[in-house]
Amino acid sequence: MFITFEGIDGSGKSTQARLLAEALTAEGHDVVLTREPGGSPGAEEIRRLVLEGDPDRWSAETEILLFTAARRDHLERTIAPALAAGKIVICDRFADSTRMYQGLSRGDLRGLVDQLHGLMIGREPDLTFLIDLPPEVGLARAKGRQGKEERFEDFGLDLQVRMRAGFLALAREFAPRFRIFDGAAPKEEVSAAILATARTALGARA
Amino acid sequence: MFITFEGIDGSGKSTQARLLAEALTAEGHDVVLTREPGGSPGAEEIRRLVLEGDPDRWSAETEILLFTAARRDHLERTIAPALAAGKIVICDRFADSTRMYQGLSRGDLRGLVDQLHGLMIGREPDLTFLIDLPPEVGLARAKGRQGKEERFEDFGLDLQVRMRAGFLALAREFAPRFRIFDGAAPKEEVSAAILATARTALGARA
Repeated sequence: MFITFEGIDGSGKSTQARLLAEALTAEGHDVVLTREPGGSPGAEEIRRLVLEGDPDRWSAETEILLFTAARRDHLERTIAPALAAGKIVICDRFADSTRMYQGLSRGDLRGLVDQLHGLMIGREPDLTFLIDLPPEVGLARAKGRQGKEERFEDFGLDLQVRMRAGFLALAREFAPRFRIFDGAAPKEEVSAAILATARTALGARA
Repeated sequence: MFITFEGIDGSGKSTQARLLAEALTAEGHDVVLTREPGGSPGAEEIRRLVLEGDPDRWSAETEILLFTAARRDHLERTIAPALAAGKIVICDRFADSTRMYQGLSRGDLRGLVDQLHGLMIGREPDLTFLIDLPPEVGLARAKGRQGKEERFEDFGLDLQVRMRAGFLALAREFAPRFRIFDGAAPKEEVSAAILATARTALGARA
């Protein structure tokens, strides 16, 4: 089973992805926790190329190509082999993030993102956990931990507002695989709700 | 006018591209000489990512995506601005090399290369000079200058034979923009023939 976590910056999705991986591992599942961009040695190199340095050094189109190259490598080297071995793959961000960040933030490139995805990736997650959150809260959290990779957080509140709406629209578009959680709730409540949903989905498959 | 040079390794195309740029510059033209992969700061970084290191670290599909990302950057930052300013752009390798090296050498990926090209690049050269040469001669020359970037030269004579045939087939497929030259002829003869052809094409446009 291929599970992804999505949401705006500061939504807590990385923490929740880790907590779910730990909980499922404790229950005896074989779990691979990974992230995008990155997740394989080659994809991590591409990640550095995209996220470090001048934010304007790549056009949106080139950035989409680089993210797709990283995703292809990640899928081939990490995700697909783990799934083939019967493992649960939990991934912090996947194609939905490209649909949002590149497809929505810099011109209307969503069509291009989808065509590239269809051509080079194809695979969608079995289950996507969207951690929804008021953008003000997410931005305040994200600003507390800014490092070298501040490419996207930099674009401000207006973008985060549009991103949140975009993710919710995406959840409607791909409704069967999306589950929405309230990221403003206490961390433990959110993780318990996510674990329960994952258990149900795994049970339905077993 | 956008002119590209293509051919197998060791065909002398880089030398011929430089000689043509020098000759046209001497005749008063404003010429930009560039190369692929690379040709812009971002594309050169992607070039290093692809050409250095273990030859098997990228799949053919990921490699095509990385080359397309580099080409998009090169086109946006170097080629298109120069053409818009009325300059002559001479480029050592372009999309035809990807059609050959990735589209032919590692599985039948030509269709994928063409779809990506149509989606993300679009632009074809106005004129392509193919330096044709027996593969044995090209390989012997290429081996004499092997450095860090020996990714493709490494695949041996059999590949070079198929590459040569592939380039000649490509010249038939895109006949209007292709001109074929005998790379086994003395360098000065080849460069004189290329310059004459370029002058005619420029004259027809003027």
